[in-house]
Amino acid sequence: MNINLRETFKKCKYKFSGHGNNTIDVLKESFKNIPSEIDADIYGEGHVIENFENKIANLLGKDSARFYPSGTMAQQNALRVHCDEVGISKVILHPLAHLEKREEYGLKYLHNIDSILVGDETRIYTLDDLKGIKERYSVVLLELPARDIGGEMPTWEELVAMSEYTKANNIRFHLDGARLWEAQPYYNRTLKEICSLFDSIYVSFYKGIGGVAGAILAGNSNFISQAKIWQRRYGGNLISLYPYVIPANYYLEKRLGNMSKYWDCAKDCAARLNKIDGVETFPLIPKSNLFHVHIYKNKKEIESALNFIYKKISIGITPALTKIGKKYKFEISMGDRYSSLSKIQLDEFFNLLEEKL
Amino acid sequence: MNINLRETFKKCKYKFSGHGNNTIDVLKESFKNIPSEIDADIYGEGHVIENFENKIANLLGKDSARFYPSGTMAQQNALRVHCDEVGISKVILHPLAHLEKREEYGLKYLHNIDSILVGDETRIYTLDDLKGIKERYSVVLLELPARDIGGEMPTWEELVAMSEYTKANNIRFHLDGARLWEAQPYYNRTLKEICSLFDSIYVSFYKGIGGVAGAILAGNSNFISQAKIWQRRYGGNLISLYPYVIPANYYLEKRLGNMSKYWDCAKDCAARLNKIDGVETFPLIPKSNLFHVHIYKNKKEIESALNFIYKKISIGITPALTKIGKKYKFEISMGDRYSSLSKIQLDEFFNLLEEKL
Repeated sequence: MNINLRETFKKCKYKFSGHGNNTIDVLKESFKNIPSEIDADIYGEGHVIENFENKIANLLGKDSARFYPSGTMAQQNALRVHCDEVGISKVILHPLAHLEKREEYGLKYLHNIDSILVGDETRIYTLDDLKGIKERYSVVLLELPARDIGGEMPTWEELVAMSEYTKANNIRFHLDGARLWEAQPYYNRTLKEICSLFDSIYVSFYKGIGGVAGAILAGNSNFISQAKIWQRRYGGNLISLYPYVIPANYYLEKRLGNMSKYWDCAKDCAARLNKIDGVETFPLIPKSNLFHVHIYKNKKEIESALNFIYKKISIGITPALTKIGKKYKFEISMGDRYSSLSKIQLDEFFNLLEEKL
Repeated sequence: MNINLRETFKKCKYKFSGHGNNTIDVLKESFKNIPSEIDADIYGEGHVIENFENKIANLLGKDSARFYPSGTMAQQNALRVHCDEVGISKVILHPLAHLEKREEYGLKYLHNIDSILVGDETRIYTLDDLKGIKERYSVVLLELPARDIGGEMPTWEELVAMSEYTKANNIRFHLDGARLWEAQPYYNRTLKEICSLFDSIYVSFYKGIGGVAGAILAGNSNFISQAKIWQRRYGGNLISLYPYVIPANYYLEKRLGNMSKYWDCAKDCAARLNKIDGVETFPLIPKSNLFHVHIYKNKKEIESALNFIYKKISIGITPALTKIGKKYKFEISMGDRYSSLSKIQLDEFFNLLEEKL
């Protein structure tokens, strides 16, 4: 009998990852206490959007910030501005960067910017990697944490050294901060301190924050002025962005203070998983709310175990498995949900997993 | 004393153009009766967005449709797909096309597509214009109605002839239908009949419909499949677009049937304006809900008259004036507001305008 894990997962009342069901109530909740007579923003102008941009610029310690409908657009715009200023159409990306894997090569097709890929599927790149590159390039894009490598992050010292190296060599250092909020507790430094190492930063408002969509690009004023021109070229300065700005602001207020808690949940969950034979998390101790789970069993065994548990106790850990080599992998990304599970529920889940795998 | 017309206009309780104040209540009203537990769309998949795309594809008589956050993005994607298929990176645009005037030349910067400009500030282009072009090109983009020429439109016969000409010459015919809903009554034909003349169509859901933002690109299935790849390259397939889709659907249902009424309002208003010395509408008889007003007076005279009226009876006709040659111009775009003004109010407005100008 074929198992439809996604279906059984979907029916689970409880889940490990995320904040809750992704329904339109996410938007409705954020608008509940917003007065109806507030003016819509018009093409990027208006109190709601400008106040939010200023708030994030301050939070990240940058001169200027611009709200974007998507991070894809924000980052391509950022890289183009940097490349034009430095004068070389080449950037350093990890082979698993969003720009390489999930954007249909927009950077190449729309800007003719080439990527030099550094690092591999098991590790992020280091300062030594950068030093080894003989070609000239304009930008190093670093993702913190690196989602597709289980949320890996360089040490603070390594980060500072990379920042100094890029500065000394007229290379721009761009932060793919899709999950920067989630990365911050690991460094135990303020967002401002982290961002001071970078020339430009993209942050996201769904993922850990749990808004509806949208991103911010931050940097110095001249950089943002130029990015805005590209945003218009993309058709990205929509007539009104408040449907994303208001949830972004609401859930940022609600959840920014929870990032350490989500990290604790990840560490708790990983420790419980690592006790089970044939199961290993990557990293062994998560560095943020996000980590990967590797299971050294065949697909049928894993699916059958998970399916049994989902049906029996209605707690879901993943909707799907990805094959890598001889093992199977899935991602866990902690939000409000995990801590709402009782110790009894968690014990039951992990006992069953150990028993059935 | 300097007059701040925009400020006095803003304070007016009644206005000629539009449906109402552009506040966040536009979004709130459309979500009021939507059940909270409906799933968000994820990267273009999900009932809410797919049902709406299918509905619009059917309405326009095309195989396939894709929701976009903006028309700028939708049209650039459309032109790129057509140019790639035909094999020539050149398109015909009017010099006042949105792509020429309001997109920072995204088409050129992102796609290296050149535009051949046809027509001028006083007229749209004709089949004879097209026949006179000796260069080869891939696409003719026609805007119906042509906003910046007071909503001008070719006759049905001319439109059919242009369609036949493009078809016979392996040229793609693309409709900039930002205001197609508003244009339809003039032709007294169904949307399907109008759209059957075009290979691809962009329509908008704010403007006449009065939604929050968003657009649809429609065409055959292969064309839309390719456009979707470009949409991803642009970062335009947002994680969730329901904050625009739900208002688009709500206000389309509410207002699509009103387009003839808005046109009647435009004709009524234009006839009243044309009776006043020094005032002339373009076109003399509007062809849609949208037209331009030309006033042959100096700026101070006009602003002082309007300012007096706005303050006295709190009815606003325009926030600003644009100089063209020796006259001043503004746009009127009819929605729900005009017909909510009483005959007494309108008489008073136009009597005062005649008296004060």
